[in-house]
This record gives sequence, structure tokens and C-alpha cells, in this order.
Amino acid sequence: MTADPTKRSLDLNCDMGESYGPGSAGNDAALLDYVTSANIACGFHAGDPGTMHKTVQLAIGKRVAVGAHPSLPDLQGFGRRTMSITPDEAYDLIIYQVGALAGFARALGGKLSHVKPHGALYNMAAMDRKLANAIAEAVKDSDPNLILFGLAFSELVRAGEEVGLTVANEVFADRTYQADGSLTPRSQPNALIKDVNASIEHVRRMVEDGKVKSLQGTDVPVRADTLCIHGDEPTALEFVQKIRKALTDSGIRLAPVGQ
Amino acid sequence: MTADPTKRSLDLNCDMGESYGPGSAGNDAALLDYVTSANIACGFHAGDPGTMHKTVQLAIGKRVAVGAHPSLPDLQGFGRRTMSITPDEAYDLIIYQVGALAGFARALGGKLSHVKPHGALYNMAAMDRKLANAIAEAVKDSDPNLILFGLAFSELVRAGEEVGLTVANEVFADRTYQADGSLTPRSQPNALIKDVNASIEHVRRMVEDGKVKSLQGTDVPVRADTLCIHGDEPTALEFVQKIRKALTDSGIRLAPVGQ
Amino acid sequence: MTADPTKRSLDLNCDMGESYGPGSAGNDAALLDYVTSANIACGFHAGDPGTMHKTVQLAIGKRVAVGAHPSLPDLQGFGRRTMSITPDEAYDLIIYQVGALAGFARALGGKLSHVKPHGALYNMAAMDRKLANAIAEAVKDSDPNLILFGLAFSELVRAGEEVGLTVANEVFADRTYQADGSLTPRSQPNALIKDVNASIEHVRRMVEDGKVKSLQGTDVPVRADTLCIHGDEPTALEFVQKIRKALTDSGIRLAPVGQ
Amino acid sequence: MTADPTKRSLDLNCDMGESYGPGSAGNDAALLDYVTSANIACGFHAGDPGTMHKTVQLAIGKRVAVGAHPSLPDLQGFGRRTMSITPDEAYDLIIYQVGALAGFARALGGKLSHVKPHGALYNMAAMDRKLANAIAEAVKDSDPNLILFGLAFSELVRAGEEVGLTVANEVFADRTYQADGSLTPRSQPNALIKDVNASIEHVRRMVEDGKVKSLQGTDVPVRADTLCIHGDEPTALEFVQKIRKALTDSGIRLAPVGQ
Repeated sequence: MTADPTKRSLDLNCDMGESYGPGSAGNDAALLDYVTSANIACGFHAGDPGTMHKTVQLAIGKRVAVGAHPSLPDLQGFGRRTMSITPDEAYDLIIYQVGALAGFARALGGKLSHVKPHGALYNMAAMDRKLANAIAEAVKDSDPNLILFGLAFSELVRAGEEVGLTVANEVFADRTYQADGSLTPRSQPNALIKDVNASIEHVRRMVEDGKVKSLQGTDVPVRADTLCIHGDEPTALEFVQKIRKALTDSGIRLAPVGQ
Repeated sequence: MTADPTKRSLDLNCDMGESYGPGSAGNDAALLDYVTSANIACGFHAGDPGTMHKTVQLAIGKRVAVGAHPSLPDLQGFGRRTMSITPDEAYDLIIYQVGALAGFARALGGKLSHVKPHGALYNMAAMDRKLANAIAEAVKDSDPNLILFGLAFSELVRAGEEVGLTVANEVFADRTYQADGSLTPRSQPNALIKDVNASIEHVRRMVEDGKVKSLQGTDVPVRADTLCIHGDEPTALEFVQKIRKALTDSGIRLAPVGQ
Repeated sequence: MTADPTKRSLDLNCDMGESYGPGSAGNDAALLDYVTSANIACGFHAGDPGTMHKTVQLAIGKRVAVGAHPSLPDLQGFGRRTMSITPDEAYDLIIYQVGALAGFARALGGKLSHVKPHGALYNMAAMDRKLANAIAEAVKDSDPNLILFGLAFSELVRAGEEVGLTVANEVFADRTYQADGSLTPRSQPNALIKDVNASIEHVRRMVEDGKVKSLQGTDVPVRADTLCIHGDEPTALEFVQKIRKALTDSGIRLAPVGQ
Repeated sequence: MTADPTKRSLDLNCDMGESYGPGSAGNDAALLDYVTSANIACGFHAGDPGTMHKTVQLAIGKRVAVGAHPSLPDLQGFGRRTMSITPDEAYDLIIYQVGALAGFARALGGKLSHVKPHGALYNMAAMDRKLANAIAEAVKDSDPNLILFGLAFSELVRAGEEVGLTVANEVFADRTYQADGSLTPRSQPNALIKDVNASIEHVRRMVEDGKVKSLQGTDVPVRADTLCIHGDEPTALEFVQKIRKALTDSGIRLAPVGQ
């Protein structure tokens, strides 16, 4: 990547606080030195109240934007299994979890900046406009200043725009894409990009060229307002360090969405 | 009870939304015509997000003050079993559940007015000052304008006063008392007052005379800022109708705390 | 219905123990006087351990066949929401819940007789052969003498037969049918038959003629080894009394499957 | 430790399967090469059905005795928080969880050998005879051939003996003791023995001399039928390797209880 003074800034986000119970919170503290936004689990796929407290506190301490990462109610499946919920149920899940995380942000002297649905809920909302609308309404009704993260150019981003929210088109550093712009499901063997150099080139194309090569070989247009590095892979720290370096080396300014 | 123009007003509160899953919400809608404050379950002993939504909406529609009714995490035991949680864990439980319920209140055009811990957490906080302090801090850190409900003259009320919260001393219409001012545990056979006339006289003494006869025969001083009618007994509606009538017949003004 | 000495016997089953926490178990005790098999919730959509204990004990006391009623893990949605679980996950859900309920049956001096998946899992298994195979394998691996209940002529019944289990084709007294033999989803307005006389005629046709009129107007072939009366509707007791009377008046012997 | 041909054999046990959801199961597979009994979480403090399946399968494959490790219902607190449950509730918790784990053992071609209550339930049952009796009854009613593990010389061991179960007095390789024979609570700083050599000497005294030095300085009599190495500490593998070597070097035969 080459420096370009006209380049817009990029947000670097990571899913965090995704343990349950009094276990170790993984390498969240280390990752927070490299990202600009943290999406923090809210108790439905992971993230008991104690873990939420610790993770929000870490993020505030490192001046990382605090986001809610609400999920389908599925602790056993880590929120990765599609469920046939109604739009009303989706609305209520978002209000509940965003409210809980906003409570920690407020109590700890920070504020909630954004909302990024987790796992299956994220993927369902990318495709299903009624569900996307319900989520967007819930985010707006929680706080109209919240930024809604959604898969680039997806129904969720469109729904957010329609209700008047600031939205962030999201791209993924370590996920492969399908020809329709969706993420390759994790149940498929080539869902993840495990080589960091391949990931850097993949990121560069998305950020600089606004394109991603799908597994079907076609180029898919994307827009990168925020780049996700998954926090739950063992290699997350190395990935985020190298990708961050590649981005800053090429002159991209890393900052939370809207800052 | 005889009318007395100098009498201060009384709040009439009820625990609500205490089902889990898509079942009937009991006679919550009917009860809301007679109480001035609703303490709404937040998901830890009862109250899934859909039930919270419906109950908050009902309360707002009937101009009843909306309160959070946070609990120990114990769906199987309905939050009635003592657990050895640390003050830090208590703080986090409160922040989480109050945040979630405040989210619904805000989204539905209302606001959260008060917090009343549920069941075992309420009783533990009445006795254990460290736990009470943690809960009071959590309520204040959630929103310093919230009113904290606690057992009359208990540690929870004192802790709330100390951190600067408005507090409400609570008395119970259908519960018997011990000589130390605590409620008789539900595991004991005479914990509940099941005769409505006995309950009315019990309420009258607490509200007018500031006294309650303990099961040990001694008089215990109490203060009645708010009177609880339990919503989970089948006779709840009859109780609340008759007690409300007796109170208004005696000239007591019924209104949410602080109004 | 007219008496016919050659008629085979019919099992009358009901879903039970479908509360969570220390609440009332509905009218389970009353219903047990009229049914021959009880499908008892195992904790995943309802049925905490205490409720399981009480319900199994009631069923044994009334000589009603004890069955497990395992579900998707969805307390908030009462197990009625489709989830994209893998066959391996389905296998594990069944082993876990059947094991837990068999534990109560054994401890209380009875034995587990049958397994009937609940709600969305039941409907998914009626259509999806891979899921049905996993469930049938799990039931067999739990105990090869268990009887597997499935929607009449569905994939679940076929899968059970293929692994060598005794199966029971199930029909529903208060549910309408689609042209493909599936139950009309509860999300549709005409999913339930609320008039008891309509239900009796609907049952008569299924039991005596082996046919059900679908909502599309076509006749669908069914086979009635066991007839389900839902225990969660307020009218369940009246339904089961009247349907039982109609069946016995017409000379049908009511007995658990295989007895 | 020196070899002594008259020495009785010792069981080496480890808590396992203590994750929840589709995460890594820690180093369970490695630990299973060194222990003779595995106590497997049953879903109430950890151990979703998928994790139970994998862990039971690993244990059977390595010919390690399969045990149930039932807990209070406390995922958020990992079962380490005391709860005021009744003996009836304890009975039901044990029946449920033992039944679920026995289901996996049976389905995977093995059998359940023993039951060891987890965390706070274990410590409560060591002291409270009514609770201990309920647990012992539940284990017996689940299967009278099961072996009940309890803290050496505790009420749980006595209760097990009284109902006619085979019991195993348990000692802990990495936990310090109080003068009354109880384990030092984890909330205290010196609860854990973190130095492996100190642990080996501590084990040697318990196994060979039947004594443990309490933190108060007094010797407490113990009996070591089974020795617990905790699986949830990062150093678990090193501990178990070195302790196993020290035990076998001194001529102690390592085998499951009763073999």
C-alpha cells in the first residue's frame, strides 16, 4: 500500500469480551493497543456481566471506542446458529443487550459509540431487510447517536441509513467472500484467511480499491469504513499488528468511525 | 384508617413481568390499574426481553412509574436463593440489568424511575452493608436520579442515602416480619399474610403508626414510603384493590415516590 | 365414531412439565387422568429439574407412560424457533436431555418409555432426513427399547424405523395440516383448532379413516398411533376429556404405544 | 516417596470438559494420558452437550474412568458461589446432571463410574449433612454402583457410606487446607499450591502418612483414595506429569477407585 494524502481514515475493530464466567478474557488487553473500536459481547453468546465490566474498562482506558456486540440468545452455539426470530424479537434482543452494555459504558465514565450485531444475527440482518429494519429501529430507539456497523453494502447498512443512523460499512480481514458479497459461512473449510500476507493483500484491495475477490472468482464491490479483525482466533494479535502496520505504512489514518 | 390532611402520600408498588418465555404475563395489566410503581423483572430470575418490552409498555401506558427489579442470576430458583456473590459481582449484576430495563423504558418513550432488588438479593442487601454499598453505587453510576427501594430502615436504604440517592423505605402488605425488621423467609409456613383484612390492618399500622408487630410479638419500627403488593400470588388483584381502597378511604394520597 | 372390535388401540399423549422455575405446573395433574403418555420437558425449552421431578412422579403415580420431550436450547422462545443446528449437535441435545429425564424416571421407580422431540426440533426433524437420522441414532444409543414419536409418515418416523426403533406415527387433535402433511406453523392464524367439536371430527377422520383435510383442501394420508393433545393451551383439560370420551364411546382402546 | 509393596493403589482424578460453547477444551486430551479418572462437567457450571460428548469420548478412548461433575446452576460464577438450595433441590440437580452424563457414557460405549460434586456444591456437601444425604441418595437412585467422591472424612463421604455407596476419600494436590479439614476458599490468597515441589511433598504426606498440614499449622488427618489435580489451571499438565511420576517412583499403583 502506498501513502496517499487524500485517503480517508479507517476504523479497526475487534470482537471482545467473548468469554463466559470467570475465565481468562483471552488477549483482549493486548489487542486493544492496536484497534480503534471494540465490539463487546453482551451476555447472549458470551460476555457475563463481570467480563463486560472488565472489557469496557480496558477499552475506555485505552481510548478505544466502545461498542455493543449483541447476539441471538445462544450460549451453547456462540451465537453462530441461524434462528428464525421475528423482527419484534430482534428489536427486543437489541434493546436489551445494547442497554446492558451502555450501562457499563456510562457507569465507567465512557459512552457507547456503536453497535455491531454478532454472528448469525449479523449475517441474517445482512440479507433480511425486515430483520435489518427492526435492528436499525432498536439501535435508533436506544440512542440515535449510535453508529450501526453492518456488512458492506448489506441490508443492515441500508436499513440503518434509512432510519437516519450513521452507519459503517464493514469488511473482514480474515474472512473470504461469496459472489453475492456475503461472508463464506464458517462451516465451510475456506471461510477463514489464515495467512497474514494473503490477508494484508485482501485488506489492501478492499480498502484502496473497494473490491474483494470472491471465492467464485468474481470481484465484489465493497466499502471499508471499518475493518474487522476477529479476536477469537489464536493468531489475532499477530494479524492485527501486521495489518495495522501495513495500513499505517501506506498512510491510512486509523481512527474510530466519525472521528 | 381515618382521613388526615397532613398525611404524606404513599407509593403502591408491585413486582411485574415475572414470567419467562412466550407465556401469559399473569394479571399484570389488571394490577397496573391499581399501583403507582411497577418493579419489572430484568431477565435474571424472570423477564425475557419480550416480556420486559410488553410490561414496560403497559406501565408507561397506564402512567405507572417504571422500575427495574434486578436479581441474582437464578432462573431455576426465581432469584429466591441466597448466593455468596462479592460486592463487585453485585455491582455488575445491577449495572447490567438496570441498563437493560432502562433501554426499554427509553425506547418506549418513558424513563426509568427506580430500582428495587429482587428476592434473595433484596434480603441480602438489607443485612450486608458491603453488598448494599455496591448496589447503591451501581444504581448511582447507572443514573443518579434513580430512586432506590429497600426494606424500611435496612442497610440498603442507608447505603443509598450515603451515596446521595433518593431512597424509599419499603413495607410489605402480605409479608410477616421478624423482630429484627427482616421479612420472614418464604421457606417458613407463616411468611405470607393470606387474609386480606389482616393485611389491611397490618398495612394501616405500618403506614399510620410506623410500626409492625413481628412474629415474635414485639413491635418493630418501620417507615412506609412505598408499599409492596406481590404480583405473583393468585390473589394479588383482590389484595391490591382492597388495600388501595382502604388507603384512599383513609385519605392517603397514592403517588409514585417523589411525585 | 362407531365401535369396531377390530380397531387397533390408540395412545393419547400430552406435553407436560412445561414451566420453568418454582411456578405452578399448570393443570398437568388433572390432564394425567385422561392421557396414556406424557411427554415431559427436559430443561431446554422448559422444565427445570424440580418440575421434571414432580411431573415424572405424577405420571408414574397415575400409570401414564413417561416420555422425554427434548428441545432446541431456547428458553426465551419456548423451543419454537427454528435453529440451524448440525446433526451432531442434534445428537448431543437428545443424548443430554433424554439422559436427564431417564435419570428421574429411574430414580422414581419408573422407566422412560418414549421420546418426542419438541416444537421446532420436531418440525425440522419431520422434514430434514439428516437431522432425523441423528435424532433416531441418539434415541437408539440412549436405549434401543425407547419408542420414537414423530409426525405421521415424516422423515423422523422413517429414520426411527431404519435404525430399528419402534416408532409411533403422531397426529394432532388441535392442529391444522398443510397439503404436504406438515403442521400449519403457529405463526399463522389458523394453526390451531379451537372448537372442540371440530377437533373431534378431525380426530375421528385421522384415527378411523387415516386422512386429514389440509388447509389447502386436499386430503392427506396419516396414521394415528398416538394422538397429541397440547397441554399448554388453557382449554387443554376440556379438550382431552371430550376427545377421550368420543374415542372410548366409539370403542377405541386407549393405551400407551406397544401395550 | 519410597516403594512399599503393601501400599494400596491411588486414583488420580482431574476435572474436565469445563468450557462452554464451541471453544477449545483446554488441554484435556493431554491430561487424560496421566490421570485414571475424569470428572466431566454436566452443563450447570460448564460443559455444553457438545463438550460433554467430546470429553466423554476422549476419556473412554484413553480408558480413563468416566465421572459426572455436577454443579449448582451457576454458569456466570463457574459453580463456585455458595447457594442456599434445599436438599430436595440438591437431589434434583444431581439426578438431572448425572443422568445427562450417564447418557453420553452409555451412548459412546462406556459407562459412568463415579460422581464428584463440583465447586461450592462439593464444599457445602462436605459440611452440611442434610445436603450430603440428599446428594448421596440421588447418586444411589441414579445407579447404586456409582462411586461417590467427597472430601476426605467429610459429611459427604459419611452420607455416601450410610446409603451403601462405595465412596472415595479425596485429597487435593494443589489446594491448601484449613484446621477443620476443609479446603481454603479460593477467595483467599493462599488457597492454591503453585509450586510443584511443594505440591509433591504435600501429596506424599497425605498419601503415605494420612496427614496434611493446615494453614493454621496443625496436622489434619486425611485419607487418600483419590487425588485431585485441577484441570483448569494453566500449569495442570506439568503438575500432573510430575506428581504422577513421583507417585509411581515411590511404588504406588495408579488405578481408578475399586480397580
